[in-house]
Amino acid sequence: MSRADIGLIGLAVMGENLALNMAGKGFTVAVYNRTTDKIDRLLQGRGQGLPLVGAYSLEELAASLKKPRKVMLMVKAGQPVDNILQQLIEVLEPGDIVIDGGNSYYRDTVRRVELARSHGLRFVGAGVSGGEEGALNGPSIMPGGSDEAWPEIAPIFQSIAAHVGGEPCCQWIGPDGAGHFVKTVHNGIEYADMQLIGEAYFLMKNVLGLTNQEMKSVFEEWNAGELESYLIEITGEILGKIDEDTGEPLLELIKDAAGQKGTGKWTSQEALDLGVPAPTVVEAVMARIVSGAEEQRKIAQELFQTTMTVKDVDREEFIAAIRSALFASKICAYAQGFDIMRQASIEYGWNLKLGDLAMIWRDGCIIRAQFLHHIKEAYDNNPGLVNLLFAPYFKEAVERGEKQWRTVVSTAVELGLPLPAFSSALAYFDSLRTGQLWTNLVQAQRDYFGAHTYQRIDRPGAFHTEWQSPGEQAKSVPVEW
Amino acid sequence: MSRADIGLIGLAVMGENLALNMAGKGFTVAVYNRTTDKIDRLLQGRGQGLPLVGAYSLEELAASLKKPRKVMLMVKAGQPVDNILQQLIEVLEPGDIVIDGGNSYYRDTVRRVELARSHGLRFVGAGVSGGEEGALNGPSIMPGGSDEAWPEIAPIFQSIAAHVGGEPCCQWIGPDGAGHFVKTVHNGIEYADMQLIGEAYFLMKNVLGLTNQEMKSVFEEWNAGELESYLIEITGEILGKIDEDTGEPLLELIKDAAGQKGTGKWTSQEALDLGVPAPTVVEAVMARIVSGAEEQRKIAQELFQTTMTVKDVDREEFIAAIRSALFASKICAYAQGFDIMRQASIEYGWNLKLGDLAMIWRDGCIIRAQFLHHIKEAYDNNPGLVNLLFAPYFKEAVERGEKQWRTVVSTAVELGLPLPAFSSALAYFDSLRTGQLWTNLVQAQRDYFGAHTYQRIDRPGAFHTEWQSPGEQAKSVPVEW
Repeated sequence: MSRADIGLIGLAVMGENLALNMAGKGFTVAVYNRTTDKIDRLLQGRGQGLPLVGAYSLEELAASLKKPRKVMLMVKAGQPVDNILQQLIEVLEPGDIVIDGGNSYYRDTVRRVELARSHGLRFVGAGVSGGEEGALNGPSIMPGGSDEAWPEIAPIFQSIAAHVGGEPCCQWIGPDGAGHFVKTVHNGIEYADMQLIGEAYFLMKNVLGLTNQEMKSVFEEWNAGELESYLIEITGEILGKIDEDTGEPLLELIKDAAGQKGTGKWTSQEALDLGVPAPTVVEAVMARIVSGAEEQRKIAQELFQTTMTVKDVDREEFIAAIRSALFASKICAYAQGFDIMRQASIEYGWNLKLGDLAMIWRDGCIIRAQFLHHIKEAYDNNPGLVNLLFAPYFKEAVERGEKQWRTVVSTAVELGLPLPAFSSALAYFDSLRTGQLWTNLVQAQRDYFGAHTYQRIDRPGAFHTEWQSPGEQAKSVPVEW
Repeated sequence: MSRADIGLIGLAVMGENLALNMAGKGFTVAVYNRTTDKIDRLLQGRGQGLPLVGAYSLEELAASLKKPRKVMLMVKAGQPVDNILQQLIEVLEPGDIVIDGGNSYYRDTVRRVELARSHGLRFVGAGVSGGEEGALNGPSIMPGGSDEAWPEIAPIFQSIAAHVGGEPCCQWIGPDGAGHFVKTVHNGIEYADMQLIGEAYFLMKNVLGLTNQEMKSVFEEWNAGELESYLIEITGEILGKIDEDTGEPLLELIKDAAGQKGTGKWTSQEALDLGVPAPTVVEAVMARIVSGAEEQRKIAQELFQTTMTVKDVDREEFIAAIRSALFASKICAYAQGFDIMRQASIEYGWNLKLGDLAMIWRDGCIIRAQFLHHIKEAYDNNPGLVNLLFAPYFKEAVERGEKQWRTVVSTAVELGLPLPAFSSALAYFDSLRTGQLWTNLVQAQRDYFGAHTYQRIDRPGAFHTEWQSPGEQAKSVPVEW
């Protein structure tokens, strides 16, 4: 009996679909699941006729694989990954490769690469995006970790990944946790993108009173232009669905308390750790948290009545303005996400190729969009680009939409409609381009109460002032650092 | 020779001032510093005539103290605390007490309480707020950790703390990291408070073109009303200072790149971990980060010209509107900070008394203000209050200022002036009180691409839809959890 090309552990929906994808591309896949009836169900069901082999223990799995063995984990992030890695260390041999395809925290991956190395194993943390459908038909894959593992796994991964113009949406990202880090930031951007689309829907519904069918048409139209993307496309489809049971638009029957998993939070926390300005990504995570604060919302809705009435706005004009606001805000959110990766790459010495990342996300993943092609182009034209906003395509888009963006945000502010991500993106843009911010006052305050010192605009060095000294005149005294 | 009441390690400005404060209150303080010339300088300088004793080694320090020994560390947070704790474990005896008065990360304090306990020692993580001046004349102190340590240290700490109406601004906060946690959130609130004041200054300067002297008068006037606080007071003083050297207002010569230490970041990250909506606190941290992104700001200022011109606004009316916007935003920021503490208390079982915390901050610390009295009152009247916004005093204040708040934010949006914290606070308020948010769409999208399921508003349970099925009609299928 010929040996399997790769082993796959964990047959929940993502794992099962990935196994089917690999098998469909001609690779023999040995599949294992803790509750073994899932194995049989796959082999006798969707996997019939495909080169899938059941393994009913990790020993059996190891015995069934070509060397160096490749074992991919599709299990819940966290402790389960550590547990299985520990068991695999027992049954694998030096040179074998373990690939974690879950949404793991990248610092865990850094640790696991080291642990595996100490046992002679190679470890890869691979971000896999695209949801169920992507896993089956071609996901975007972001592998990183033990560099020496890449040539061994590249044929399989680049074969099962989505492709754009013949190029696979899968390239080696970098050492240690780079793959999972990039996947995390992908998800952070996804949070922001979804939030922005949500705000656009919220505006059309509450300012213009559009029906869901009308909004569906707007999203279909948008999907034919510069906003073309998977998320815009599925939003249109969602808006068109009628609940079979009640005959109502299904979307309006869904509770507006959003869940969040680790990746949006990690992206925000990482931006804070790295000191990267990414307010819009954080606001998107916070917006989900607010939506889930049911007790507080219930009380607030009773206590604070809405008294604002909708002004007369021109429907077509306002829809166009929302589109511009959405696009400009989206550019800011992506600029923030790429800035996080740029600065992580510097901090951790990963040498990330930002243009390549845009290409990897070009298809297969949740944020796939025509838009990413322009990001690739921006980095091709200027590999040292410090902010996406500064690339000509994006600069012009933001400038073109700026006035409408302001109209949308100020209208919502007057009407009492919250737009946390639209507003935050606009404040980010304005903060970057404002000559003098308010932070000279913050620095003066910190020097006043904590002697933190400050810099001056007219001479180099650090200075301190005894602010409490009497009189108007104050000495600004150079301080040794 | 009689033994000292307490030992103090680390004679940087905060440590030295605390030692002087204790000695001034009649406690004999043994002082130690790694570079010992600082000890002599203190004893022969500001400490002359006070009950201070120099200790030139940790052994000498231990020998000089009454038992159970109390040793307070005023060293840089992080590794230095661990290093000295390790050395103290060698020279102290079971029952002795180590107090860390730095801005330590509360999770480090949790670990150190355990470590100390395993050596028979008691460990206290005490947040100390008030800057240099507070340390000398009466800080706000937030001690937490080994409960059994409190009766031993209470006499000293409650004596040196600030007092309001005879009550010390120092109470036992709770077990393990509770003290440092509360200090961290205090600082997070302080970040937001400073940012909001900064935005008020920024508006008066850029929308109204007020001179610094005029703004000084405005802040003085504000300090006589509901905004009365230390930060408003020192802002007025700062605005009045003229640079001796150039004759220019000193504030305008200070570079607007703000620094940030760990506590604002930790508060934000903790809010994310706990799932507490605290967007305004995070925006305040992000605003400092943006201000420090000098390379990006320089390019953005060249690329994106300001084309907006200031509209005619009534000066007195707009100043009044800024005041209302500032007050309403401040209420939201404090509501978020107290929500973080409320939810941490539940999560970690700390039993924090939120009203007491407001009292502890009533004087001595950087955010001291009349305002905190109303917070104390709100929790006295309703210990189960889930959000400060819902207490009558704050509810009425926000409602009174709501229209002006909207005018200020929308004016700034139109003018291209960023107000990240004002806008974020308004979006927080509007998000809480909005009946249906956009997050039903987020949930639908997540169910579309990841089968995450959703809840319905008209029946209990979790549901999934095969969104890609053809046709308008969609099944909403109950899902087993």
